[in-house]
Amino acid sequence: MAAWLVGIKTLRIQPYTLPPLGPHDAKIRIKAVGICGSDVHHFKHMRCANFVVKKPMVIGHECAGVVEEVGSQVKSLTVGDRVALEPGISCGRCNSCRVGRYNLCSEMKFFGSPPTNGSLATMVLHPANLCFKLPDNVSLEEGAMCEPLSVGVHACRRANIGPETKVLIVGAGPIGLVSMLAARAFGAPKIVMVDIDDCRLSFAKKLGADGTILASTKIEDVQDEVIQIENAIGARVDVSFDCVGVDKTMTTALSATRAGGKVCLVGLAQSQMSIPLTPAAAREVDVIGIFRYRNTWPLCIDFLRTGKIDVKPLITHRFSFSQQDVEKAFETTARGGNAIKVMFNL
Amino acid sequence: MAAWLVGIKTLRIQPYTLPPLGPHDAKIRIKAVGICGSDVHHFKHMRCANFVVKKPMVIGHECAGVVEEVGSQVKSLTVGDRVALEPGISCGRCNSCRVGRYNLCSEMKFFGSPPTNGSLATMVLHPANLCFKLPDNVSLEEGAMCEPLSVGVHACRRANIGPETKVLIVGAGPIGLVSMLAARAFGAPKIVMVDIDDCRLSFAKKLGADGTILASTKIEDVQDEVIQIENAIGARVDVSFDCVGVDKTMTTALSATRAGGKVCLVGLAQSQMSIPLTPAAAREVDVIGIFRYRNTWPLCIDFLRTGKIDVKPLITHRFSFSQQDVEKAFETTARGGNAIKVMFNL
Amino acid sequence: MAAWLVGIKTLRIQPYTLPPLGPHDAKIRIKAVGICGSDVHHFKHMRCANFVVKKPMVIGHECAGVVEEVGSQVKSLTVGDRVALEPGISCGRCNSCRVGRYNLCSEMKFFGSPPTNGSLATMVLHPANLCFKLPDNVSLEEGAMCEPLSVGVHACRRANIGPETKVLIVGAGPIGLVSMLAARAFGAPKIVMVDIDDCRLSFAKKLGADGTILASTKIEDVQDEVIQIENAIGARVDVSFDCVGVDKTMTTALSATRAGGKVCLVGLAQSQMSIPLTPAAAREVDVIGIFRYRNTWPLCIDFLRTGKIDVKPLITHRFSFSQQDVEKAFETTARGGNAIKVMFNL
Amino acid sequence: MAAWLVGIKTLRIQPYTLPPLGPHDAKIRIKAVGICGSDVHHFKHMRCANFVVKKPMVIGHECAGVVEEVGSQVKSLTVGDRVALEPGISCGRCNSCRVGRYNLCSEMKFFGSPPTNGSLATMVLHPANLCFKLPDNVSLEEGAMCEPLSVGVHACRRANIGPETKVLIVGAGPIGLVSMLAARAFGAPKIVMVDIDDCRLSFAKKLGADGTILASTKIEDVQDEVIQIENAIGARVDVSFDCVGVDKTMTTALSATRAGGKVCLVGLAQSQMSIPLTPAAAREVDVIGIFRYRNTWPLCIDFLRTGKIDVKPLITHRFSFSQQDVEKAFETTARGGNAIKVMFNL
Repeated sequence: MAAWLVGIKTLRIQPYTLPPLGPHDAKIRIKAVGICGSDVHHFKHMRCANFVVKKPMVIGHECAGVVEEVGSQVKSLTVGDRVALEPGISCGRCNSCRVGRYNLCSEMKFFGSPPTNGSLATMVLHPANLCFKLPDNVSLEEGAMCEPLSVGVHACRRANIGPETKVLIVGAGPIGLVSMLAARAFGAPKIVMVDIDDCRLSFAKKLGADGTILASTKIEDVQDEVIQIENAIGARVDVSFDCVGVDKTMTTALSATRAGGKVCLVGLAQSQMSIPLTPAAAREVDVIGIFRYRNTWPLCIDFLRTGKIDVKPLITHRFSFSQQDVEKAFETTARGGNAIKVMFNL
Repeated sequence: MAAWLVGIKTLRIQPYTLPPLGPHDAKIRIKAVGICGSDVHHFKHMRCANFVVKKPMVIGHECAGVVEEVGSQVKSLTVGDRVALEPGISCGRCNSCRVGRYNLCSEMKFFGSPPTNGSLATMVLHPANLCFKLPDNVSLEEGAMCEPLSVGVHACRRANIGPETKVLIVGAGPIGLVSMLAARAFGAPKIVMVDIDDCRLSFAKKLGADGTILASTKIEDVQDEVIQIENAIGARVDVSFDCVGVDKTMTTALSATRAGGKVCLVGLAQSQMSIPLTPAAAREVDVIGIFRYRNTWPLCIDFLRTGKIDVKPLITHRFSFSQQDVEKAFETTARGGNAIKVMFNL
Repeated sequence: MAAWLVGIKTLRIQPYTLPPLGPHDAKIRIKAVGICGSDVHHFKHMRCANFVVKKPMVIGHECAGVVEEVGSQVKSLTVGDRVALEPGISCGRCNSCRVGRYNLCSEMKFFGSPPTNGSLATMVLHPANLCFKLPDNVSLEEGAMCEPLSVGVHACRRANIGPETKVLIVGAGPIGLVSMLAARAFGAPKIVMVDIDDCRLSFAKKLGADGTILASTKIEDVQDEVIQIENAIGARVDVSFDCVGVDKTMTTALSATRAGGKVCLVGLAQSQMSIPLTPAAAREVDVIGIFRYRNTWPLCIDFLRTGKIDVKPLITHRFSFSQQDVEKAFETTARGGNAIKVMFNL
Repeated sequence: MAAWLVGIKTLRIQPYTLPPLGPHDAKIRIKAVGICGSDVHHFKHMRCANFVVKKPMVIGHECAGVVEEVGSQVKSLTVGDRVALEPGISCGRCNSCRVGRYNLCSEMKFFGSPPTNGSLATMVLHPANLCFKLPDNVSLEEGAMCEPLSVGVHACRRANIGPETKVLIVGAGPIGLVSMLAARAFGAPKIVMVDIDDCRLSFAKKLGADGTILASTKIEDVQDEVIQIENAIGARVDVSFDCVGVDKTMTTALSATRAGGKVCLVGLAQSQMSIPLTPAAAREVDVIGIFRYRNTWPLCIDFLRTGKIDVKPLITHRFSFSQQDVEKAFETTARGGNAIKVMFNL
């Protein structure tokens, strides 16, 4: 059975026939699936960016489960292993794949990104090398959280976060929060978060942010807010993550970052942006783009295992995998509010 | 004697008293000075960006000359040496200097950037380690050209240009041209240039561009122009240099660059920019900022010595250092047109 | 038909049955195969490093040919295309592959490296994405030369050779020569070569080395030879390639390289080395290891197409693919002397 | 007063006249000085590597103190500030300095490295930008420990240690221990240490090593020990630090490190080394050289302030600054045994 997106805001739990198991594949009984912003976008609009849902498609991509069967060539997994799934299957043949930037593969087949079916299903097939064993002290729900956490980890790697990097994070939604947790695990000694919502900031503080700044939505407040940011951080900012992606947030990020620093554009809310890019460029502030992640699961699992990162507080809502609950779960995520991560237990 | 900027568009050749020669300094009889866009900006507006000319200041910073005298500790130079001068004196003590990014030094004293006097003068003092000997086959005028060429060299270094990098250059003015020459010398196998002026493009082609595209000033033409660019280059673009810095040029650069590529923002015409940054970031196109240069003179001189770069065709106009000619020379640069580089011979 | 290595110095041209064509494979009619030092090692010793020939194996891995048939999913090739073959098939699933260092894949299947059959055969199957189209002005023999040239290209990439890098190459054999050609194509402004054989040095000079130093085999001569190297290069060395790999050559490389420079160990003649590593490390000279290459074919072909590199002079001997000639060809390579590259024409 | 090295194992506490205070200098009342292996080498042999003590010289370079007076241009310090001193004054003009690798400056003036006087003195002059303020919760003795800690920090930076790096440290002496503390602070998730002395290993374990391996001095045991290392670390080693620098330790480091990993040569006990370099190079294991450090004080102080690193357990012996104690302190360090760091309190 799987959750099929059949129309706008319409999900049907219906049978899902799997193709035959290939020699390098594993069959996984899915146990936990989280809902992501992009899933909600598909749910509400039947599209996300240039990807359009043209026929019924299984939704979902943040998942973990238990190995049910393995292909003839699979040595890394055994039936019964608990695993987290990296959702994208790259071609392995193109130039992006061959140079190790497989997240940019143009042939990528990604769970729940049209036309590829997703993982909100009782059973899926997946390449065994994209199924990562969970240690005993990491739950399946935490395993599913490797996916959003991977975005933060990839951003931290690309921005080269370490024990010398003072970090600003603009936006305290799910992506801002995982970026904060990742930056902390990469050793960032100071992390200040900015948001327009005080509740989110309180939550961020509880999760470990060193300082928080309540911002307005007005561009003209940026200069004042930058001063507050610098006061909170006790220095200029080395790296800023814009986890929203609108004019105001990017203006804040560009203005707050020191000469020679970096701005990571992680959130992608707005396509066309009006921003003071030139003054930042003239201070050799580089703007780093982020698309998903690559090679992040082992590190995420290690962070969870050692307790360097605790993602459990992010899971605020749980639903069962039933026709009755499935749309409700998506509506809950869509409303935002106090819902950070909504999780299905299958 | 020196050319003092005493008011808007008003230069006076008047006496210039030098401070005493320090142990690490050299006294240089200046023989060639080029005029840069920023000099013209000072000339016309008594300011450039945040730097304001508050009292009479000697103008100019692209220069070369002959060593007249050296300080007691100077071993690298001898009287009579022909040298090109790197115009900025960094503090050597701050963090930017200590990590080797001295171009970002906030205590920088830079020829002709207020309040530091420039080098359009018969004689200047300068740290000996910023005076680079010219080989016999490199003229003093070519020595002065190391300054604008350094901008291109620094951009190529930051963008990591090499024999695998297909390059787009938007803007065929002086900075676009030196970027093209530098990219070629760094091994770029294909360079396509875009401009709105056909004469500039003809000149760029003569100088070695592999292809040229005449662009409009309209944003809505970007998609068509990107197709023309890709056809001309026979591939997607690895690195784009925006050597103008306005909405249209940056939109072209962001749109034309392949996933995982880089856009270098070299020209800084417009402060606030309205650009499709997010779609580029989502393809992990990074935007690299450029401020002047660092450690470029030895390489520039080597490029000139070996003939890998020929800057002589860029010198289109020459003036003597006289009260009669000095303002005329700046007006000539300001008019643009067929004037690429205007040079004083002292 | 294929050249089967059936015993020490014993090759038999015998039938070679190919497996069925997979959807991503191409069938290639081989037209040119070069002989490499490692092939000769297999020929003479039935082993190379830890790889032992336990049963008859087709030899050879430097090759080019014509596409005879393509699998159902292949879009990049057409029957009749002339192609150069990258000889190693990596697994695409392990960590080395996923991070883009596929040359370190421990599951690599590499032409003519036991137990994988090689390419000295009239027909082979190969993944289509490892078959690279040759332009009209690049011959099939030149295509086969992409393999040895790739070693030089990979070394230059790992050592970050560019227009600022003064290069020393110790050893003027085939690998030293391709490293020199590659370093030149990457922009190295000065390349000095050292060897104990004057003929090889003459050849190196003809091929474009800026200077050559005739060395002894005695360690105690290193200091003198380093002075000669510095005189020839007119500076200290930024990067040294040891293309031999014995005590003397590595001592020369370590001693000649400037503080903060790099030594690339490309030749691997001797396993245990007695070398002055500590004094070099204390000058922050890094020693860079090299194993084969990755993602080099497109760049090699581009170098050949544009004439930045000419490999034709390296091809000194040619043989037909016949029982009569096949062992003779290997003996010719084994003797060395004036044989740089021995090529089969099939 | 200062401790003058006047002959082998002969120190005299005698007056020390300071030069006049320059505009960028600070006068520091020294309060804590640690003894380093290189100090002991000078003490015992009147030389260290190529640096020979030709006339009486003040010894010592690991130090902290209180600002007594500042030059006219100093803004960063106030009288009474507690500061740690970075001991090396680079020229600021040479190429190494200008590119940010000032530790390689050939004109370096370094405390207690002949012919430059050291800092085991009641009062010294030093450039203010090399005096780093200590926070209230960091003692002067901890401030002096920034020097040895800097070696570990620089090694970690050059080896790019982070939360994904499994680390082997060969040698559990002072440098091995600071490297371990630094690697931990950079996020290394697993650190295994090897030594031939069980007491040192116990101490290393108490300080935080995840595992320890007691090694022999025999080369033939390396393979067995590598297996023990891999078992202890639960994986192959990403980065090895050789903090001894002899044949056996480097053989262990090279053999244990995974394909594509790095070996950092930090300890420099032996100049000529007999090691299996080629098999490591053929796995693209790079050997990284280390010389002192650069730009490390702010990070070291931050590690101490936040408690990410605790250096206090390393200080095992304390002496007063008196004629009676001074040689005894050096003898204590020379004996080794349970003496990790011997500290003077002035």
